Amino acid sequence: MNRFSFTLLSADPRSRARAGRLVTPHGVIDTPNFVFCATKGAIKGLSMEATRRAGAGVILANTYHLMLRPGAETVARLGGLHRMTGWPGPLLTDSGGYQVFSMQGAGDELQGKGQKARPNTVRDISEDGVRFRSYLDGGEHLLTPESSMRIQRALGADLVMAFDECTALHHSHDYTARSLSRTHRWALRCLEEQERLERQRRDMGDAAPHPQALYGIIQGGVFRDLREEAAQFIASRPFFGTAFGGCYGKTKDDLYEMLEWAAPYLSGSENAAGSKGSEGSKGSQRVLDPPGPRPRPVHLLGVGDIDDIFRGVRCGVDTFDCVQPTRLGRHGFALMPGQKGGRLNLRNARHAQDTTPLDPENHHPPTAGFARGYIHHLIKSEELLGIQILVEHNVAVMTRLMREIRAAIPEGGLDALEKRWIAA
Amino acid sequence: MNRFSFTLLSADPRSRARAGRLVTPHGVIDTPNFVFCATKGAIKGLSMEATRRAGAGVILANTYHLMLRPGAETVARLGGLHRMTGWPGPLLTDSGGYQVFSMQGAGDELQGKGQKARPNTVRDISEDGVRFRSYLDGGEHLLTPESSMRIQRALGADLVMAFDECTALHHSHDYTARSLSRTHRWALRCLEEQERLERQRRDMGDAAPHPQALYGIIQGGVFRDLREEAAQFIASRPFFGTAFGGCYGKTKDDLYEMLEWAAPYLSGSENAAGSKGSEGSKGSQRVLDPPGPRPRPVHLLGVGDIDDIFRGVRCGVDTFDCVQPTRLGRHGFALMPGQKGGRLNLRNARHAQDTTPLDPENHHPPTAGFARGYIHHLIKSEELLGIQILVEHNVAVMTRLMREIRAAIPEGGLDALEKRWIAA
Repeated sequence: MNRFSFTLLSADPRSRARAGRLVTPHGVIDTPNFVFCATKGAIKGLSMEATRRAGAGVILANTYHLMLRPGAETVARLGGLHRMTGWPGPLLTDSGGYQVFSMQGAGDELQGKGQKARPNTVRDISEDGVRFRSYLDGGEHLLTPESSMRIQRALGADLVMAFDECTALHHSHDYTARSLSRTHRWALRCLEEQERLERQRRDMGDAAPHPQALYGIIQGGVFRDLREEAAQFIASRPFFGTAFGGCYGKTKDDLYEMLEWAAPYLSGSENAAGSKGSEGSKGSQRVLDPPGPRPRPVHLLGVGDIDDIFRGVRCGVDTFDCVQPTRLGRHGFALMPGQKGGRLNLRNARHAQDTTPLDPENHHPPTAGFARGYIHHLIKSEELLGIQILVEHNVAVMTRLMREIRAAIPEGGLDALEKRWIAA
Repeated sequence: MNRFSFTLLSADPRSRARAGRLVTPHGVIDTPNFVFCATKGAIKGLSMEATRRAGAGVILANTYHLMLRPGAETVARLGGLHRMTGWPGPLLTDSGGYQVFSMQGAGDELQGKGQKARPNTVRDISEDGVRFRSYLDGGEHLLTPESSMRIQRALGADLVMAFDECTALHHSHDYTARSLSRTHRWALRCLEEQERLERQRRDMGDAAPHPQALYGIIQGGVFRDLREEAAQFIASRPFFGTAFGGCYGKTKDDLYEMLEWAAPYLSGSENAAGSKGSEGSKGSQRVLDPPGPRPRPVHLLGVGDIDDIFRGVRCGVDTFDCVQPTRLGRHGFALMPGQKGGRLNLRNARHAQDTTPLDPENHHPPTAGFARGYIHHLIKSEELLGIQILVEHNVAVMTRLMREIRAAIPEGGLDALEKRWIAA
């Protein structure tokens, strides 16, 4: 029995945007959707219960952080991520690859923000894998395609990612090409290890944990030929899903150009099942039955601004993840469509006596009714409750955005919706 | 219409302990009960909703903190504490007196822990009131009996406290006696100002806020004659309730000796209505109708260890407040009756792999099921969720304690209950 499936339900007549249904052992992810970050096994400032009631359908935890603390074995002993955290729904883990590189300061550069002077924690990248130092205690660790898969099996997510090298903006075409070849050899080792783990799992009979589904990751830096090569490679191998990651260039436009390069291959197979699937649909609500190979869910790694969501959805992205909504909340910002910049800084003194409710339209009653002046006071007083309220509000805003996007796609209403969400 | 009342329901045949029903405009406080501290208008780490579901019946906010930030006028503009925080139930504010003195380091000394070297923020104590510097910005403020009452009116609690001076352990009998006389003159000014505010309120007709009920506070330091004098004085004046505060001596035993000195007067009037009330009751569940003046609710300020609760209840205390349950949670401790010390340090490495649920007896399902190893991980990783879980757990433990105490009183079961709660 295959406990994973991805079905396209409708498509935007004017773009690659599509609405779908991603079935996992822990429930359905309606797509497009947003994946909230529970980096270390907790959404910062929000209980899983509140995360759920704010409408979240899927969350992510980070292999890199969890392998270092509390350790994958401990998570397994505590019953795996679902049981440990109490999150009942679909769950995704990354491979650890991105963070091995970003935690040494390449993260900002990966996103085109220049290089920061952080200690070099990557000791060695070889055919085998990456040797790096822990950000916690400096201890040395090795992450390989095989160990990443085994760790992700121990963590117990539904959706897992292949192990990759994230090249940075300063890397040459030559280095990026050699890195990409190795990332593809790693991808094949991930598939192989996952197949082995899956056989092992099936042999466990009734004691077997739930199965997992693997995403391949498209790398290739800012180079068109490499991104195309990567997209074709991942599409031609039996991954369940496709993720897009790595260095997104210097500007937001760069990312969408890259996504266009990869678009024909994103949804699986060289025959571009996803785009075929949408051709025959034109706004229909019926379940599409694409003539090519089955469509693949497409995940865009680490992107979550509201304008990015609209652009990504139009490029055929089905899921997004980003720390932005929760991080903004921790720093006193409420996502506020229609406002300048799409957010409100509750720390600003002009809210000190502000009796306006956080959300006058009352979309999410558990947080909507608090006066902005009260939240301002909580933030200024460093009361945790201020963070709790803003993080829950921001999660609710993002889930509402994704709901409205899903509803707009079959009606060709994305442009109108975008205008309502993003002030000129 | 009097929207406040206090009715004795039953009494312990073997002590002054009694169970009662304290009616306020925002609902009933079943007594004995515990008042959780929302110092700056928020329980640290816990939403009001979660506070409620953990069984809390009444909370407290601090006049001193709120008058400095965000300011009483701002709280009033935001609709008062109930509306601002979303707490629907009974609410209490202190007078600011205690903190004016404790924030300059006398707090520890007030509790018999020796004097700490903190800057002297009290500028001047006069007949008028206390001039002090803000702990936030050094700005000078004056708190008088009248301004304390007006600030507490603006904050909008149900139960309010008279303004007092908290003398410290090092103060002589002579100083304490002079201070006490002044505190009593302040108490009369509080009564007068409260009566004036009440008349003003009634003149407002339909726009009037809810009424407030005033507690007098028994001071007098560690001196028997002064504590008795204070208890008699407060009992002989028309306060709604009696609070016991100030310096509690060097050891816990000192406090209970003091409470015994005051006991005949605690529940109002020199005729000791409270103790008369319990004489005729002997474990009965029927509503008592004491022959003397109406009984007064008795509040013990700033006390909240579990052993203290049992001792205080036996002295006739109806309500307690303390930051302890929430503070312990923030520092990684779970209240755990039956454990050594009555608490569990989840930060301890022995919980790193601990699969035991936080509360194997599952008294409070929203927090009981988390593995101790997970909470250990959250605390070590400085995830806010660790605090959220432990604070909610601790609030639930305290409300359960108070429920069980209320049930034990009419059955004379306090001793047996205490044995179950406190390990030898």
